[in-house]
Amino acid sequence: MGRVTTRVRTLRLDAEAGSAAERPDTLAVEEPLQVRVGGEPLTVTMRTPGDDFDLVLGLLHAEGLLHSAQDVRALRHCTDTGPDGSPTYNVVEVTPAPGSPLLGGLPARSFATTSACGVCGTESVEDVRRRSRHDLHGDDVRVPAGLVAQLPGRLRAAQAVFERTGGLHAAGLFDRDGELLCVREDVGRHNAVDKVVGWALREERLPLRSCLLVVSGRASFELVQKAALAGIPVLCAVSAPSSLAVELARESGMTLLGFVRPPRANAYAGAHRITVTG
Amino acid sequence: MGRVTTRVRTLRLDAEAGSAAERPDTLAVEEPLQVRVGGEPLTVTMRTPGDDFDLVLGLLHAEGLLHSAQDVRALRHCTDTGPDGSPTYNVVEVTPAPGSPLLGGLPARSFATTSACGVCGTESVEDVRRRSRHDLHGDDVRVPAGLVAQLPGRLRAAQAVFERTGGLHAAGLFDRDGELLCVREDVGRHNAVDKVVGWALREERLPLRSCLLVVSGRASFELVQKAALAGIPVLCAVSAPSSLAVELARESGMTLLGFVRPPRANAYAGAHRITVTG
Repeated sequence: MGRVTTRVRTLRLDAEAGSAAERPDTLAVEEPLQVRVGGEPLTVTMRTPGDDFDLVLGLLHAEGLLHSAQDVRALRHCTDTGPDGSPTYNVVEVTPAPGSPLLGGLPARSFATTSACGVCGTESVEDVRRRSRHDLHGDDVRVPAGLVAQLPGRLRAAQAVFERTGGLHAAGLFDRDGELLCVREDVGRHNAVDKVVGWALREERLPLRSCLLVVSGRASFELVQKAALAGIPVLCAVSAPSSLAVELARESGMTLLGFVRPPRANAYAGAHRITVTG
Repeated sequence: MGRVTTRVRTLRLDAEAGSAAERPDTLAVEEPLQVRVGGEPLTVTMRTPGDDFDLVLGLLHAEGLLHSAQDVRALRHCTDTGPDGSPTYNVVEVTPAPGSPLLGGLPARSFATTSACGVCGTESVEDVRRRSRHDLHGDDVRVPAGLVAQLPGRLRAAQAVFERTGGLHAAGLFDRDGELLCVREDVGRHNAVDKVVGWALREERLPLRSCLLVVSGRASFELVQKAALAGIPVLCAVSAPSSLAVELARESGMTLLGFVRPPRANAYAGAHRITVTG
């Protein structure tokens, strides 16, 4: 359980040298995780094992199926055995608490489809949009650009695995002083963010009013949405945002930074939260 | 329609210089696409507009819902207008042909959930596995390592957009001589591969027996699976594969190369198809 990396044999080919040398390589582990609610399968996600409960909490939160840790009575791994007789940990069973939105709120279809409303064309973006319970407009936090620019480096330093595999995305939650609160890794960048939000939900820290979320790759619509739903006012991406990520950040009142590479960063939305002094 | 990139205003922050300068930036467009079959909404995927029909064909093929171009009678964009009065192109309507697996074969739940069989633990990997109709074991194609190492460069050269945005994944299909047959881009790397396979399906080229698929990023389980379902014997990724990508490639008889950067490449599976000469 919880293997984040694994060793495999690989053949290192070199066309110039005309050589092929066997050597071990460290890869990020990817395995399916099935989420069940009250015994019923809800969805399957491909993920890197580890922090599975955080992943499940964050995923259900992003789908609007739970709002706080009180909505869940229990989380457990099903511990059946795999073909080789060893235990598998690829199913998480969620027991809803009384009154939880998880009860009776389960979509008839899974996430991908319930995101669509079925109204042709006109409201396509609205179809995939979930309204956040937390208003991000307002004067909640102000962060110096110099501090923001350092955060991707701090995230990388905190990653136990990244340097070894090159195959894992990371998401890190920082406070307004740049202190790292939580870092999570996954082969899927959405999962890394779900794990961070799930951690915060479990720790009863939602909404994350004065926090900054840093992601190792690009910023998509879904990442902005997950951050908005968790009440996070500032999202920093090491790479580019998409058009819809910018659009949603602007609508939500979120600060969205891209290409955060010291000493520079691009502010695509909410630049008022970032201070620049000469 | 079909906007692949868009211009946005961004504030370029420089913590060292203490400056903030407004400038335009080019971003990859991300918009939702709803897929309907016979009028019924099937799924929504976030994608970069362009080659939508290829995307839909490839997506349905990967889900086992169609096998050839003959399974589809018609594809059309719904052309409702958006809030600003301009036409939207974010819904594709699929009309199945008589006898198509699309008829009556629609899953009650959407992709994410039907990937799960509901058997706890023991067969979790099998749950998300789709059996390919094309056996990749066999002596179908042999490619020099020196040629393979050049393919990512050829893919980048063919990408109209990548250099400008840094936000688009690419997938390119090459023949055994390294000639580019088809290149597709998307904010989602799975979409880029679906678009390539959808193109091949539309062109009645499946299975892609003697072709190589090159992807600009990492190789996940899903990319290997999509390639296997299209009968592609060689998958080359510029970055790392995941553990499950390697496992599935080995089981399928596929050649999987990672970190393909001239003059080197790592062979994780099926190295017999790659020749190295000094």
